[in-house]
Amino acid sequence: MLTLDKVFHAQVVLKDIIRKTPAVRAYGIAPDCELYLKPENLQITGSFKVRGSGYMIAMLSDEEKQKGVIACSAGNHAQGVALAASKCGISSLICLPDSAPISKVEATKAYGADVCLVKGCYDDAFQKAIELRDEKGYTFVHPFDDENVIAGQGTIALEIFKDLDDIDAIIVPVGGGGLISGIAYTAKQIRPNVKIYGVQVAGAPSMYNSINSGQIECLDSVTTIADGIAVKQPGENTFNIVKDYVDDIALVTDDEVSSAILALIEKQKMIAEGAGAAAVAAVMFGKFPVSGKKVVCVVSGGNIDVTSLSRVIDRGLLNSGRSFSLLIELIDKPGQLKDVSRIIADCGGNVTGVHYEKGNTESVNGCYLRIEMETRDYKHIELITQTLRDEGFKIV
Amino acid sequence: MLTLDKVFHAQVVLKDIIRKTPAVRAYGIAPDCELYLKPENLQITGSFKVRGSGYMIAMLSDEEKQKGVIACSAGNHAQGVALAASKCGISSLICLPDSAPISKVEATKAYGADVCLVKGCYDDAFQKAIELRDEKGYTFVHPFDDENVIAGQGTIALEIFKDLDDIDAIIVPVGGGGLISGIAYTAKQIRPNVKIYGVQVAGAPSMYNSINSGQIECLDSVTTIADGIAVKQPGENTFNIVKDYVDDIALVTDDEVSSAILALIEKQKMIAEGAGAAAVAAVMFGKFPVSGKKVVCVVSGGNIDVTSLSRVIDRGLLNSGRSFSLLIELIDKPGQLKDVSRIIADCGGNVTGVHYEKGNTESVNGCYLRIEMETRDYKHIELITQTLRDEGFKIV
Repeated sequence: MLTLDKVFHAQVVLKDIIRKTPAVRAYGIAPDCELYLKPENLQITGSFKVRGSGYMIAMLSDEEKQKGVIACSAGNHAQGVALAASKCGISSLICLPDSAPISKVEATKAYGADVCLVKGCYDDAFQKAIELRDEKGYTFVHPFDDENVIAGQGTIALEIFKDLDDIDAIIVPVGGGGLISGIAYTAKQIRPNVKIYGVQVAGAPSMYNSINSGQIECLDSVTTIADGIAVKQPGENTFNIVKDYVDDIALVTDDEVSSAILALIEKQKMIAEGAGAAAVAAVMFGKFPVSGKKVVCVVSGGNIDVTSLSRVIDRGLLNSGRSFSLLIELIDKPGQLKDVSRIIADCGGNVTGVHYEKGNTESVNGCYLRIEMETRDYKHIELITQTLRDEGFKIV
Repeated sequence: MLTLDKVFHAQVVLKDIIRKTPAVRAYGIAPDCELYLKPENLQITGSFKVRGSGYMIAMLSDEEKQKGVIACSAGNHAQGVALAASKCGISSLICLPDSAPISKVEATKAYGADVCLVKGCYDDAFQKAIELRDEKGYTFVHPFDDENVIAGQGTIALEIFKDLDDIDAIIVPVGGGGLISGIAYTAKQIRPNVKIYGVQVAGAPSMYNSINSGQIECLDSVTTIADGIAVKQPGENTFNIVKDYVDDIALVTDDEVSSAILALIEKQKMIAEGAGAAAVAAVMFGKFPVSGKKVVCVVSGGNIDVTSLSRVIDRGLLNSGRSFSLLIELIDKPGQLKDVSRIIADCGGNVTGVHYEKGNTESVNGCYLRIEMETRDYKHIELITQTLRDEGFKIV
């Protein structure tokens, strides 16, 4: 059974396995509250996961340790288990779908695990892991629905309370629910007045739906940039703990998560993955009543692929009016591009792409001109489009 | 005169103005040495500059303080002076060229400075600042060529030595030379065996040229993504200190800096600006004999515009084979795009852009097909292009 003693015990056991991450004051992200971050993106392996798997693995019997552990994950859990097993001196085998990015496979190997690539998707890899467990006697390390795993994640609450007094709320991203279960269970017993809020993404609202309907719900599919919390179904343990100890759960959109990633980059010089930025997104977009309060957002991880990061930044620039794509219908006469270029340059826009496109224009001799540019903000975009309209250009 | 006592004094004076940044062990960036980072990108205002201006301003006489300070900068120095002045309770006026990005102007104001926008470029703003100094009696805060400013930057060396034993080298980005002067002067007196290496960018090699020719050289122009160290001419004080105390200076390219920014993002979840990543770039690309050594790279700042960051990431992806643009000459027959798409998909490439372009193709009915895609690495690109060639496509 999960007890507060276990969480304190986990803190002692994890001392030489994990990093104690500092609580960091964050300015300029949510000006109407006193915002702190718990940056588990700076944790070893780049996410909090090593806490739970570290404690779970350390608690195994000698016999279990000798046989080794197995897990199934293409993400942070894989690296957490790999490192925790290495630090405990035992062997680990991680099953990954063969579609997993090479970078994740390499990172998992680098932390000392053996890797078993399974043809198919996550579910196929999971099936294979269960088979191997039964066949070889490995212990299966569940990513969230295990009391020792939950106790390990709970150590985050102990660290927060050690660093900060008088906090009003802790906001936590929710996937399977292991992280928030550990934090909520621990916090509510030590400081019951502290509100615990959970955040899921609109594309993967499994815990949100389950809590609202009062029973565990399973999603058919999940789709979000926050792959770390794209979980189809909460665990039984985690569902019950969240039901009892969490004050509210809200949803954020992928666009809100993108904006939060961008804010963490610009204001904190810090990289968060989608899941890691979800709690910050919830504060930025007013999902909880924390105005004027002292609030801690758990930034759960920072393992975002640079390709995804590039897309998120592009999306964030677009959403904040700092890049802009314009489609102008041109009539066929010389000097049109020259005039458009001059107007944009005079307004201070910085052209980054130009394409002519044929299409169903009013005149048979017409064409479309698409111009991509860097802009300062929405007011700047408005200035540019209005000036173009004033000079007779037709913006589609 | 600059003395070690001044640096120690600066450390005491700066106690309530700056953050003590931690020395951070960095894994996976330069596997052949024991690499640590001194992350001044996490300093208040996002760069080390507040140390030097903070000490310089604190040392002013009461009369000087009452009149206030003036500075000229469109970057980190502006924010450093603004914050330092605010913390000392005195007024500051920052002259910026009116072409400065709005975000920099706003940040400078947010730290408490008044801002004077000057029509023209940096030199015009500098001229205006000197005029205002003479007219109003403000004290001018030089960005680097001032003994108290240099003493303030020297506190970085004291912090490094407090955190780390037995280091072999400190590597420092060099613009005007204030940062490396403070660090080199301090380090060589406390631990003379520690090597001090300076890094400039190939597009702004003013100190590099000056040291090599034995006299101060002035560049006609500078061009680099590392705008924080794009300085045309070193100071007299800084030139003399670098000449006496720095072991070597090397140049890095903008592409090398981009790769370092990307590595800091991926391995450290940390945002550095171009100047901030220059020292890391020097280690990654073997500019100094530090193999097997314990090395500290000073990450001098993190204030990079997100638009620039997006470009740097795109460039980094291209340079590491993770994105790729292909030009294929097609002949005019149906199904060509279908075949190309199939081959790329079968090879695991992820198409992100497609353009048909007319051009001087062999056949009058031919055209060019440009395909942009996400790839895994150079081997993956080779696989895709070879497969296309094997199936008869002509890659330009």
